[in-house]
Amino acid sequence: MDYQSLIRDIPDYPKPGIVFKDLTGIWKDPLAHQTSAREIADHFRNQRITKVAAAEARGFITGSLVAADLGAGFLPVRKPGKLPWETISETYDLEYGTDTLEMHIDAVSPGDRVLLVDDLVATGGTLAAVVRMIRRQGGEAVGVGALVCLDFLRPGDRLDIPVFSLVHY
Amino acid sequence: MDYQSLIRDIPDYPKPGIVFKDLTGIWKDPLAHQTSAREIADHFRNQRITKVAAAEARGFITGSLVAADLGAGFLPVRKPGKLPWETISETYDLEYGTDTLEMHIDAVSPGDRVLLVDDLVATGGTLAAVVRMIRRQGGEAVGVGALVCLDFLRPGDRLDIPVFSLVHY
Repeated sequence: MDYQSLIRDIPDYPKPGIVFKDLTGIWKDPLAHQTSAREIADHFRNQRITKVAAAEARGFITGSLVAADLGAGFLPVRKPGKLPWETISETYDLEYGTDTLEMHIDAVSPGDRVLLVDDLVATGGTLAAVVRMIRRQGGEAVGVGALVCLDFLRPGDRLDIPVFSLVHY
Repeated sequence: MDYQSLIRDIPDYPKPGIVFKDLTGIWKDPLAHQTSAREIADHFRNQRITKVAAAEARGFITGSLVAADLGAGFLPVRKPGKLPWETISETYDLEYGTDTLEMHIDAVSPGDRVLLVDDLVATGGTLAAVVRMIRRQGGEAVGVGALVCLDFLRPGDRLDIPVFSLVHY
C-alpha cells in the first residue's frame, strides 16, 4: 500500500527548520489504518510476542491495533505522573535537556517478549529508554515496529534491536 | 466478559478524595483488550459509522481498535499545539478553570457519521466539546462508546447523544 501519499509534510513544525511528517492521513483512511498495523504485526507474527509497548500519545494509535492483531497485551508508556499505580522510569536526552517516561511496575513480567510500536522513529532515544525499562522488568525487547523511520537520524546508533518500518526517509 | 475484575481502584489519585479507576489491566489482558473494543463496535455496527474520534491519550487505545473493527477512519483529538496542521478548537469547563481540545480542520467531512470513544466517561464535559467540533465540521455525532461510565456524575446532563458503556458505576 502507498502510505507515503497519505503523509503530509508540515514545514517549520514544531519549530523552524524541522519538516514534520503528519501521519493523521494514514489513521483517517480506514484501509491504511488497518493494513499498516497488520503489516507490522505480520512482520513479527512468528516471534511469540506477548506484549506491545507504546509511548503516548501517537504511539498508542497503531500500537493498540498491533497488540490486538498479535493477541498480545497492550502497555501504555507515559509521561511522569500520568500512570496511576507504582511505576519505574527512565530519563533520556533531548537536543536540549532531558525527558522522562514511566511504565507500571507490573506491566512487564519476566519472560515477556515485548514489541515496541511507535508512529515515527527519529533518533531512537525515546525507544531506547523504553527498551531499558523492559529489560529492568525482566522482559525481552524483541524489536520496534513503526509507520515511518527517519533513517538519516541514525536510530540504529541508539537501538540494539531490529527496527521494522513501512516508510523510510 | 468480567471487565470489572480487571479494574484497579487507586485511592486519592490524581488528588485526595478521588478514587481513580485504573483500566490498564483491561488493555494488558489480550482477550479483554480485543473483546472490549469488539463489544463497543458491535453496539454501533449497524449505524454506518464513518469515523471514530477519541481524545488523547487514553482514549486512543480503545478508540483506534474500534475504528479498525468498524472499518472507519480514526481521528485523534488533542491538546492545543499537538496537531501539526490547521485546527478548530473548543474550550470546556473543568472543576477549576477550563481546558481546550483541537481537531484538524479536515478531520470530519459533511455527512460523516462519527462515533466518539473514550476509556472513561465522567462528567461528559470533554466529550461534549468533541461533539461541538464534529457538528461545526458538518458531521453527525452518533454516540459515545466507553469502557467505563461513572453514572453518578450524570454525563447525560451534558451529552445529548447515547452513551454505551461496558461497565457502570
